[in-house]
Amino acid sequence: MAQNATGIPFDDIRNLLPLMPEPDAASVESVRARDRDLTKPPGSLGRLEEIVEWLAAWQGNAKPTVNRPTVCVFAGNHGVVERGVSPYPQAVTRQMLENFSAGGAAINQICAAYDLGFKAFDLALDMPTGDIASGPAMDERTCVATMAFGMEAVAGGTDLLGLGEMGIGNTTIAAAIYAALYGGEARRFVGRGTGVDDAGLARKVEVVEMALATHAGHLSDPLEVLRRLGGREVAAMAGAILAARLQRVPVVLDGYVVTAAAAILHALDPSALDHCIAGHVSAEGAHREVLERLGKKPLLDLGMRLGEGSGAALAMGLVKAALACHRDMATFSSAGVSNR
Amino acid sequence: MAQNATGIPFDDIRNLLPLMPEPDAASVESVRARDRDLTKPPGSLGRLEEIVEWLAAWQGNAKPTVNRPTVCVFAGNHGVVERGVSPYPQAVTRQMLENFSAGGAAINQICAAYDLGFKAFDLALDMPTGDIASGPAMDERTCVATMAFGMEAVAGGTDLLGLGEMGIGNTTIAAAIYAALYGGEARRFVGRGTGVDDAGLARKVEVVEMALATHAGHLSDPLEVLRRLGGREVAAMAGAILAARLQRVPVVLDGYVVTAAAAILHALDPSALDHCIAGHVSAEGAHREVLERLGKKPLLDLGMRLGEGSGAALAMGLVKAALACHRDMATFSSAGVSNR
Repeated sequence: MAQNATGIPFDDIRNLLPLMPEPDAASVESVRARDRDLTKPPGSLGRLEEIVEWLAAWQGNAKPTVNRPTVCVFAGNHGVVERGVSPYPQAVTRQMLENFSAGGAAINQICAAYDLGFKAFDLALDMPTGDIASGPAMDERTCVATMAFGMEAVAGGTDLLGLGEMGIGNTTIAAAIYAALYGGEARRFVGRGTGVDDAGLARKVEVVEMALATHAGHLSDPLEVLRRLGGREVAAMAGAILAARLQRVPVVLDGYVVTAAAAILHALDPSALDHCIAGHVSAEGAHREVLERLGKKPLLDLGMRLGEGSGAALAMGLVKAALACHRDMATFSSAGVSNR
Repeated sequence: MAQNATGIPFDDIRNLLPLMPEPDAASVESVRARDRDLTKPPGSLGRLEEIVEWLAAWQGNAKPTVNRPTVCVFAGNHGVVERGVSPYPQAVTRQMLENFSAGGAAINQICAAYDLGFKAFDLALDMPTGDIASGPAMDERTCVATMAFGMEAVAGGTDLLGLGEMGIGNTTIAAAIYAALYGGEARRFVGRGTGVDDAGLARKVEVVEMALATHAGHLSDPLEVLRRLGGREVAAMAGAILAARLQRVPVVLDGYVVTAAAAILHALDPSALDHCIAGHVSAEGAHREVLERLGKKPLLDLGMRLGEGSGAALAMGLVKAALACHRDMATFSSAGVSNR
């Protein structure tokens, strides 16, 4: 593996950052002007109004759409699972991917309830990443290629992207990334994931500590953090978030693992997540603290910790309702309602 | 007006309280048993799992349904509006009722987005209730008749009831009810409603203080609080909540004014709201504090303060998704997923 690569591939990613578009202020102003005419007191729909402004800002469209909302779930396997960080065997990652295809998972039901498109991506499940406790997860070219795959995956005309993931062991991966980015004790970022017992929790903490020690001195570059500690699904999601920005597609983040991909981009450029909202705050680990660091106020707080994009999809249901209000409500004049 | 009525009508209401059914523990246990088999880690859907248990408990059905979810909005007019407690004229109540019928209000769009049934009820809009600052809102027979109307309104086979209201001036009514039930300074319960300025806010506080003084010594009975300070829509919603319990229909509460109707029942019997969930916490007044008093943790916190059942309807979208997960997910054995 080219663990001491030249750095050129990562530069390909870094070179995209200056190309990120700004929010479209004119579209936001158009939305606000229409909002003032709608048959409701100003501001009374709270964050639903902000959601529509956010759609307009990032789609660059005074009449934003949610015609092709899509949840993309990325699945990866992790060498670190060999260290007993999950109560479930690694085989469950593929089994759940098959469950997604058969329509049997929670995310399938939520997407059906809200009429959201759904795609799942197999990221070389037969080739787990390296054990982060003893070495890097990926070489640089693999990391960049996986980011590029994530970029391609969001193509196809979606106008609202929800991100999700599946990967036995990946809350340990997320915890290691946060600990590397934000410092402090490993245990602060470690949660019970799918439900490890106390011994499993202790193993997760120990593994994150080992990973930080193994990679010490190489974690100042966020892309190195991603390559050394991240899984393939995390790299793909980082690519997807960046591609969505470049294509002006607003993004709804999910829980602890999706946010770790977002945190990598945020560490590269604090404005890189301006087109993203936090769908929910997870019950896992330090998600609330991480969202605060990213300046994101979650739409939902329902004690969920499933992943699969489940929290993002629920939030996308709210986004659809918010846009329906803005798009379809009567105005004071059209409805003959007195406006003060 | 029969302001010193015999008390027999109120006793008709009180006599219903002992008839309230208990939650169905066997149905809850069936739901939990199925939940353990679904292809997800135990507990990972958080409050979505609790929602399904709540549906089962109150429908008395191990396989709960949301086939006919309905939002019922009750509209009333208030004599107290003459005192300048709202920036909108009283005529807006009827105008908005017509907007509901025409499908132009926010609640119509949210119901359409989530495929919820919708009904709006005109509660004698041409006969505003009495000015609570100087006398009772209603006589006892009117109050009971309005509660009975609310009871009838929820009939018709709905299996999930969302409550909403429309009534210019009714955040002042709600504030007066809370102040009467919970004591303390009037200003604690007064918010800006549809958006009064500082002078309007001061008038609202003054009106609530006047109402409390006018009715002092007569506010120990919650039904007297309802009759003296409540609007017709509040009385109707109190009836609807009680009728839903008797018919085993789970209820989703909306914001500050709907919760005032619930608070009346809670003051009569602390178990009277066990079949209700709080759809959201409003930005209005002391809603967060009131929900804590009622032991209700809101599903949503989106800074909304519109009424119309808008927060309840959004939460009903979550309830539908929660049930879809429970009802339609694969089990570990059917999907061939390893369960630890």
